[in-house]
Amino acid sequence: MEEKTISNSRRCYKQWLCFMVLFMSFSVIYVDAVWPMPQMISSSMARYTLNPREFIFQYSSGSSAQPGCSLLDSAFERYFPLIFTDYRHNEWFRFPFTVVVHVERAECEGYPDADSSESYKLSVCSGQAALRAETVWGALRGLESFSQLVYQDDFGEYFVNETEIEDFPRFQFRGILLDTSRHYLPLHAILKTLDAMSYNKFNVFHWHIVDDPSFPYQSSTFPDLSSKGAFHPSTHVYTQIDVKRVIAHARLRGIRVLAEFDSPGHTQSWGKGQPGLLTPCYKGTVPSGTFGPVNPANSSSYKFMTHLFKEVTSVFPDSYVHLGGDEVDFTCWKSNPDVRGFMLKMGFGTDYTKLESYYMENMVNITKGLNKTAIVWQDVSCGPYLSLSVVEVWKGGCYLCEVRRVTKAGLRVVLASPWYLDQPGPTHDWARYYTVWPLAFKGTEQQKKLVIGGEVCMWGEYVDATNLSPRLWPRASAAGERLWSDEKMTSSVIDAFPRLVDFRCRLLRRGIQAEPLFVGHCRHEYQGI
Amino acid sequence: MEEKTISNSRRCYKQWLCFMVLFMSFSVIYVDAVWPMPQMISSSMARYTLNPREFIFQYSSGSSAQPGCSLLDSAFERYFPLIFTDYRHNEWFRFPFTVVVHVERAECEGYPDADSSESYKLSVCSGQAALRAETVWGALRGLESFSQLVYQDDFGEYFVNETEIEDFPRFQFRGILLDTSRHYLPLHAILKTLDAMSYNKFNVFHWHIVDDPSFPYQSSTFPDLSSKGAFHPSTHVYTQIDVKRVIAHARLRGIRVLAEFDSPGHTQSWGKGQPGLLTPCYKGTVPSGTFGPVNPANSSSYKFMTHLFKEVTSVFPDSYVHLGGDEVDFTCWKSNPDVRGFMLKMGFGTDYTKLESYYMENMVNITKGLNKTAIVWQDVSCGPYLSLSVVEVWKGGCYLCEVRRVTKAGLRVVLASPWYLDQPGPTHDWARYYTVWPLAFKGTEQQKKLVIGGEVCMWGEYVDATNLSPRLWPRASAAGERLWSDEKMTSSVIDAFPRLVDFRCRLLRRGIQAEPLFVGHCRHEYQGI
Repeated sequence: MEEKTISNSRRCYKQWLCFMVLFMSFSVIYVDAVWPMPQMISSSMARYTLNPREFIFQYSSGSSAQPGCSLLDSAFERYFPLIFTDYRHNEWFRFPFTVVVHVERAECEGYPDADSSESYKLSVCSGQAALRAETVWGALRGLESFSQLVYQDDFGEYFVNETEIEDFPRFQFRGILLDTSRHYLPLHAILKTLDAMSYNKFNVFHWHIVDDPSFPYQSSTFPDLSSKGAFHPSTHVYTQIDVKRVIAHARLRGIRVLAEFDSPGHTQSWGKGQPGLLTPCYKGTVPSGTFGPVNPANSSSYKFMTHLFKEVTSVFPDSYVHLGGDEVDFTCWKSNPDVRGFMLKMGFGTDYTKLESYYMENMVNITKGLNKTAIVWQDVSCGPYLSLSVVEVWKGGCYLCEVRRVTKAGLRVVLASPWYLDQPGPTHDWARYYTVWPLAFKGTEQQKKLVIGGEVCMWGEYVDATNLSPRLWPRASAAGERLWSDEKMTSSVIDAFPRLVDFRCRLLRRGIQAEPLFVGHCRHEYQGI
Repeated sequence: MEEKTISNSRRCYKQWLCFMVLFMSFSVIYVDAVWPMPQMISSSMARYTLNPREFIFQYSSGSSAQPGCSLLDSAFERYFPLIFTDYRHNEWFRFPFTVVVHVERAECEGYPDADSSESYKLSVCSGQAALRAETVWGALRGLESFSQLVYQDDFGEYFVNETEIEDFPRFQFRGILLDTSRHYLPLHAILKTLDAMSYNKFNVFHWHIVDDPSFPYQSSTFPDLSSKGAFHPSTHVYTQIDVKRVIAHARLRGIRVLAEFDSPGHTQSWGKGQPGLLTPCYKGTVPSGTFGPVNPANSSSYKFMTHLFKEVTSVFPDSYVHLGGDEVDFTCWKSNPDVRGFMLKMGFGTDYTKLESYYMENMVNITKGLNKTAIVWQDVSCGPYLSLSVVEVWKGGCYLCEVRRVTKAGLRVVLASPWYLDQPGPTHDWARYYTVWPLAFKGTEQQKKLVIGGEVCMWGEYVDATNLSPRLWPRASAAGERLWSDEKMTSSVIDAFPRLVDFRCRLLRRGIQAEPLFVGHCRHEYQGI
């Protein structure tokens, strides 16, 4: 009686899964276990024993990065326990092994950015692994792959097989969005997500930090925004120190932090700490007491935004900033006599999309003045021509039609539509997130190049620290491989399934609360609860 | 862009929820916060301060239970930190308060059972709360209610309002099923679930301990069953000590542990450690190498079952034992010449339901001989007449038709159909689990009395320790109130919503990873991850 009702197709699916589980119990090959799949990997059955007591990470003599490179030094420290998951001090056998890391350009104190190379080469042979990368960010990706090549036998001994990897990401932008406005996410939940992102080679944390329900970002310029707009002024806020911790944690893992301060819609919580910012809605000739989007008719709105984004862009080092711009409801603007007067004055007639574009144009110019690249939700590109550069496509339906349209206009695209993971769904939906083909639209090579990546969206209506991890992982891992790996090498769900099952166990072993894909077990089950 | 597609009805629902959230932010009344709703509760605005340093649980002089009653002594210890969630030692004010507990019949070392009374009366006045119950089990329920009456103001001070409660469960059997075969659940996950069950006044832990995928129960009589049938013979088993811990933990919370050893189907894992038990399937005239349900034609099968159930019924003290009996596939039986011969010999013709009934009749007789009440899945009652007593209705469709049919035959019913929570679904589905009317079928009063309760089923295909808690709570709380409380007093989803939102925050505060119902926050967010 394990199922109330099973449709026939469901039953077929389950039989297929049963087959996969049976198949897996016979599978003993661990060496292809790197997730997401490297662009080129070959390995042999020659395997080398690793002894934690004689295992060393080392900079090659010609490497630009050398001891003291904080970024790689701390990566070495991190990867040791990730590789030797239950290191016991009574190991007695002698198998020295060195991972020699060579980096062309050491940017050890820098931040990853839109044009950072993440490619690397890894060559594992007896007693040594050579990891070569142009940048420290590539070295981080290579360390992750190396850590996934290591496996334990039933007696706890560690092995790595002879392996050659040449690897680079298919897409430059591989993001995960967390929404800290609809529910506040304690810092540890964000940091844990960054850990899991690095295991999956995601490289952009899109922080949808504020929205209608709450404003948890503690601004130094406008402290009232959080003291009045957060769920709680001291327990449900991100202080400047919290934000710095997130950015530092992300940096050490080669992850960019892309801050979004969404406007003019989705700003209800802003109004509490910034009177006069939002449009007063009218009922007939009198204010109704409720408020709409940011008031685009007031020059003070733009002054405020200039100050806020000056702070934001100095706090967040990334060259991108997300301006939002989605779902602007014109009802309140239409009701307001000042806004209507402004429309007349500007010659917009009754076309409020012109007003919306006017507002967004101002916002884009503000960020340009701050030397940042603006990214906006696709709603913005619907309006009249605007000097946009990056558009995030999120709506359902024929999202590739939209990708085609936007790239035809010469704009870069980040694709989110197929990866809305905030709604719960059958776990086997991972296959839906896996079988996404972002470039399968009719367009020129030039257009395809404008698709810079994709993003998993984890909206917060029904998600907080209690269910974030199992809802995100391993479903987001499916998107992770789609965005990193070669499409032809990773087109089969059947091939991916046992690899993903293995990888999910690895995530568990690393303390990530990733939910199961189907009946079965991991050698080490999740221990927290 | 928080939603990809929102249907109109969905949007209405969301607007309603927004309204509720707004409504809640104005609500400051905490005293009706007991979940599930007591049968009778009245409270006034008179509130008394509680000082943890001068707060005492006490047995009344006339109480049958007195100090030394392990069950209530440990409940007193447990409820102190549940009531004073952040007890600081620098409290200086003086507000002595005593909870005086009076129990008619002290069964402090016993186990709760099918006929245990759980009723209690609670009277909170200045300086004292009087809790009166017939049994220690009723006292436990009253302590839980008392703990939920206590609340903190913004300065951390504790209060309880003048309150009168008379309370008893609507249904005697209020269960939660966990499936430890499809995924192994570490002990801590089971114990944590028992904690949460007691907060929700559930009283039966239905332990679906073995099934096709694995046999984690470590039998002392047949150790091969787990050493060969578990996912892993030492890390993925429940030892006799583990089982005793679960039963003891449950007992202290007034929870029965109902063990299920499902047969003759769902027994693939049994076959590994008990050769000859399962039916060898045939392809034409030769065995195919696969196995079907338990072989009902072999007398050795019944001998084995007698020995196993002798052990099981001595390990599990409850007077019920669950025999399963669901989803028996006849294909393999039909293919097997010995089974076909047995059919002929018994005069069953080609009606395999007769063979199934014959098997189940034997099983029921075995448990009767062991002085236990058998409970079976509804599939069993479909066969010819059998001396059954309790039937669990689990299939979808018109489940009340089935309840009517089974009660008409004079059998007791446990209803599970509307509470299959193993599949993920929108969190607001809690309302679906809430608006279930188990007695809304045409039948006599006598028939209605035969509906002894209901059960939440958490099957394990897609559930393990990583996602058990957020998938179960607070959705199961909806079923918890339906099974405990008066139907008329708890028929409104609108009234229940803010209460459930509050109760979910209380669960969080007690370390239960209960997922959010909608946008919002708890004073204390979930801290583990």
